[in-house]
Amino acid sequence: MENNLTMLADFYEFTMANGYYENGMADKTACFDMFFRKVPDDGGFAIATGLEQLVDYLVSLSFSDNDIAYLKSRNMFSDSFLEYLRNFKFCCDVYAMREGTPCFPGEPIIIIKGPLMQAQLIETMVLLNINHQSLIATKANRIVRAAAGRPVMEFGSRRAHGSAGAIEGSRAAYIGGCSGSACTISDVLYQIPALGTMAHSWVQTFEDEYTAFATYAKTYPHGCTLLIDTYNVLKSGLPNAIRVHKEILEPMGCRLAGVRIDSGDITYLTKKMRQVLDAADMEDCKIVVSNSLDEYIIRDTLMQGAQIDSFGVGERLITSRSEPVFGGVYKLAAVWNGDKMEPKIKLSENVEKITIPAFKQVYRLYERKTDKAIADVITLHDEEIDDTKPYEIFDPEHTWKRKLIQDFKAEKLLIKVFDKGKLVYNPPTLSAVRAHCSCEIDRLWDEVKRFENPHKYFVDLSRSLWTVRASLLEKYSQ
Amino acid sequence: MENNLTMLADFYEFTMANGYYENGMADKTACFDMFFRKVPDDGGFAIATGLEQLVDYLVSLSFSDNDIAYLKSRNMFSDSFLEYLRNFKFCCDVYAMREGTPCFPGEPIIIIKGPLMQAQLIETMVLLNINHQSLIATKANRIVRAAAGRPVMEFGSRRAHGSAGAIEGSRAAYIGGCSGSACTISDVLYQIPALGTMAHSWVQTFEDEYTAFATYAKTYPHGCTLLIDTYNVLKSGLPNAIRVHKEILEPMGCRLAGVRIDSGDITYLTKKMRQVLDAADMEDCKIVVSNSLDEYIIRDTLMQGAQIDSFGVGERLITSRSEPVFGGVYKLAAVWNGDKMEPKIKLSENVEKITIPAFKQVYRLYERKTDKAIADVITLHDEEIDDTKPYEIFDPEHTWKRKLIQDFKAEKLLIKVFDKGKLVYNPPTLSAVRAHCSCEIDRLWDEVKRFENPHKYFVDLSRSLWTVRASLLEKYSQ
Repeated sequence: MENNLTMLADFYEFTMANGYYENGMADKTACFDMFFRKVPDDGGFAIATGLEQLVDYLVSLSFSDNDIAYLKSRNMFSDSFLEYLRNFKFCCDVYAMREGTPCFPGEPIIIIKGPLMQAQLIETMVLLNINHQSLIATKANRIVRAAAGRPVMEFGSRRAHGSAGAIEGSRAAYIGGCSGSACTISDVLYQIPALGTMAHSWVQTFEDEYTAFATYAKTYPHGCTLLIDTYNVLKSGLPNAIRVHKEILEPMGCRLAGVRIDSGDITYLTKKMRQVLDAADMEDCKIVVSNSLDEYIIRDTLMQGAQIDSFGVGERLITSRSEPVFGGVYKLAAVWNGDKMEPKIKLSENVEKITIPAFKQVYRLYERKTDKAIADVITLHDEEIDDTKPYEIFDPEHTWKRKLIQDFKAEKLLIKVFDKGKLVYNPPTLSAVRAHCSCEIDRLWDEVKRFENPHKYFVDLSRSLWTVRASLLEKYSQ
Repeated sequence: MENNLTMLADFYEFTMANGYYENGMADKTACFDMFFRKVPDDGGFAIATGLEQLVDYLVSLSFSDNDIAYLKSRNMFSDSFLEYLRNFKFCCDVYAMREGTPCFPGEPIIIIKGPLMQAQLIETMVLLNINHQSLIATKANRIVRAAAGRPVMEFGSRRAHGSAGAIEGSRAAYIGGCSGSACTISDVLYQIPALGTMAHSWVQTFEDEYTAFATYAKTYPHGCTLLIDTYNVLKSGLPNAIRVHKEILEPMGCRLAGVRIDSGDITYLTKKMRQVLDAADMEDCKIVVSNSLDEYIIRDTLMQGAQIDSFGVGERLITSRSEPVFGGVYKLAAVWNGDKMEPKIKLSENVEKITIPAFKQVYRLYERKTDKAIADVITLHDEEIDDTKPYEIFDPEHTWKRKLIQDFKAEKLLIKVFDKGKLVYNPPTLSAVRAHCSCEIDRLWDEVKRFENPHKYFVDLSRSLWTVRASLLEKYSQ
């Protein structure tokens, strides 16, 4: 794996950049929006994640001799363009939502403003980073909410799509609310608590299950958790675990911390397990469950009275199996002619695919009384929303739907991360990101958080922005 | 991103390894199988892929001071175990199916034999590499087969799960039969042909679509492909493309290579486009289509008479959206007591989850007359199948279902890759892997290749192996 991912770009980014360069447009300024159109799993909101890795990429953008030689070998690019790349210096402005911020369809999560050709060259990596981690954070948060306060561990490395899928996936899962990960390297790199005890292979290796458990308990008497489903949970695994607790751990002054199952009917087994454990005076022994879990299975087993203290969630979290695509796109929103912004729109037969033109900002309006988010308003970039006065929002499609907002505060969601290529943002620690995420989700109404058929949160346009868009639609419909 | 992925291991691999070490089992030999239970998308076969990246990982396995310091900080591991890791030298035997080999549920794709604790430590990365790339190669091959000879380009980097998801994903897609990728770094690293022309942003940047096309055509007169759906395909994009062909390219002695659409109804639009292009004497202008394609949409549009020369397939390929999990597992199959192999089994309430014990080999039997694969037979490792004599295969569940195979040849599928930690395998070039994949798929009957309800290919056990398994089942059922 290359450390430098500068060449992780769709080839058209090079043909376009060279085209701009060769046609005297090297200094033309443009802005692009990264946004998405649909929340995965038909959820009510997504979580903007991946900014730190995007920043890392942008800071280390540079073309090696080998990269230049490759491009030269394609016989498509001018020597002066290749020389430009050789001396490449990133000089765009970047605006972004803070990592962990809940976000909604249509609003920019990232805005890149700067030389057209530079903003174009980074398209793939903007999308890849934000799409991937936002997908996993959003999914993890659904699963964590289903677990209703019980810890959820991310267990999916083995089913991740490549090493970054595992590592950055566990990072995103942690931001989304997971308590830790099985992935050790994530702890080394990001201080995400890594945990784990044994696989079935440990149990199989020994002559019998009791010996396997006893050996493990003697080695790790503190916090010992045993996997009890290698042979038979109720007939063999659980009795052997209890025996180890009584015969080995108690005499050492320790207690069995937990038992884990990775197969079988979770509801039935955990109820039985709880009864047997409690009858053995092991009320403090936790029941840990894994095996192809997701938010729906977790919610249903808990509703059925399953006795579970914590969850390990693997493949369905790390791949977001039910919807493994976060459909973020990167669209041109404006170009500048000297100081004059020309808003740009992309039309489509599908009305929902028509873009929102112009250089923009996003405000979130919170009701002062409850501190809950009422609506987001996308505005022109320099527009201010004065929250000392009533503010009227309206549906951009059905403009007769209006609402007067009073007693609210308005917060700008897009903050400046790079100023003409200079990093002006101090990335928060991962635990601060995780706390921000949790806190901002608390500021959403429960109706927005339903798994199925959530309330559609308002994302409106300011009057000025609406007018810009309407006039472009008018222009191109002729 | 760290180059060295040694610490990309589930934490339990460390607790187990230390446990083995501390309990005098450091030199105990074991073997593990990596296999899967179900072909994604209910297909008839999968493609074993990812071996080269697994080899890279195994060759570079080593623990840095930082890794050791991290493990020490966990206060769980003995100093002598950490010293062992500090001087870690991989010394397992590794057997694997050649990359690109079609494979079937239940049979080992990879076998690791060596010190128990080493074989255990690498579990996550064996699974991660093979699961990820096998998933994508298998999906890509379905899409390529649906395209019925038309080139398929991999376009999915922006929706991949992290950088390795994009890079190794495009590698796997190429092995599965894609013609190339939009992902430039895959060309730099793996010589996967990278291609691309323009995004909608190119068209939007210029004052009008014609100027955008004309500028592009002048810059890239050879092999020029234009994206014609920014405003309106039939009213604007196609007429402008034809005008550029006539006014700019023809006078330069060039021809328009292609037009691409990324939205709208593919069947309707491409039929119209073909008529208009042909009427303009542009029969040689290719029609390229992208936009959320997969094998089903491709098959259906072609059945409906869509006029398409090549496909760009993105998110549904690079994430294998319809089934983003390749459920490969890593299970203990045997431990050795001195020279004596003790086969090991994992039981389960789910019959299909019971493992196949013992150190094994896989044979593929081909009918000599047709060169088509008849069945795979899993045997004990040292067992030989003599293909000069008739050989009886039988269904391991319904043992009365038997078939006498005659006039066949038997090929061993698992070849030795590492011998006591020494690489003894010369990885083939990527194009050789791709050719091997294509060739071996040609050796499968069409019935196995159906998208829906494929014929279930026989994967049987040799009589000796069947007997080993039956006696273990008998033992544990008591």
